Amino acid sequence: MDDADALARLSAARVAVLATVRPEGGPHLVPVTFASLGNRLVSAIDHKPKRTGRLQRLENIRADPRVSLLVHGYDDTWSRLWWVRADGSAAIIDRGVDFEAARAALVEKYVHYRSRSPAGPVIEIAVERVVGWESSPGEAIGT
Amino acid sequence: MDDADALARLSAARVAVLATVRPEGGPHLVPVTFASLGNRLVSAIDHKPKRTGRLQRLENIRADPRVSLLVHGYDDTWSRLWWVRADGSAAIIDRGVDFEAARAALVEKYVHYRSRSPAGPVIEIAVERVVGWESSPGEAIGT
Repeated sequence: MDDADALARLSAARVAVLATVRPEGGPHLVPVTFASLGNRLVSAIDHKPKRTGRLQRLENIRADPRVSLLVHGYDDTWSRLWWVRADGSAAIIDRGVDFEAARAALVEKYVHYRSRSPAGPVIEIAVERVVGWESSPGEAIGT
Repeated sequence: MDDADALARLSAARVAVLATVRPEGGPHLVPVTFASLGNRLVSAIDHKPKRTGRLQRLENIRADPRVSLLVHGYDDTWSRLWWVRADGSAAIIDRGVDFEAARAALVEKYVHYRSRSPAGPVIEIAVERVVGWESSPGEAIGT
């Protein structure tokens, strides 16, 4: 998979898995909706601020901004497997031009957000590296 | 989602995302095939040992055994979202009774492995915590 294909698959994916590292160590995972915005990826918290204050992913990012985001396709025909991983540095934003641009990108991608724009802060990932993989005929998952 | 439902969805899932932490910090993600075996989850490396020696996930686990594994279902109907996350401690095994039991569980779950059993070591995760979530009508992704 070349870089252009990897970026295209990343942008088109409807869901990703976001990984952060807990302050006490150990990884944390959660599926997220997200949108591409230039060389950044943005994901919103849907909840009200009071509740989001306790969200593990936000606590983790505040302690260590290094994150990884994975999109992938699984098919029991193993010659059709693929994944794209983006590693980067995350910031939490809750106001300003970048915040509004992120929310607009999410509303554009997900019709669901048109009737109810996400109420919480946005995780903005500055992408530092994108790696893509797809299986060749006869190749198995697990690379 | 109750514990029994979470465990059932975890066992049934065809693919998971495995997260580890890099020795230099920062999370690492890769999709994996896996099987449940009692209170353990097992995933095999398909490649020959020579190549697997360089696999990032193995290097990470050797430095820090804390891992997280996520299975999830995405649907553009957001009332159908769900995920199950298992956190635990991983070991790398390449011989012995547990190794053979893990390979047998993987061959049982994935017909693909019947003609070509995975050649590399097995990641065996002792599960310490399982958390499941599913959306309620009107609820959005992102919890």
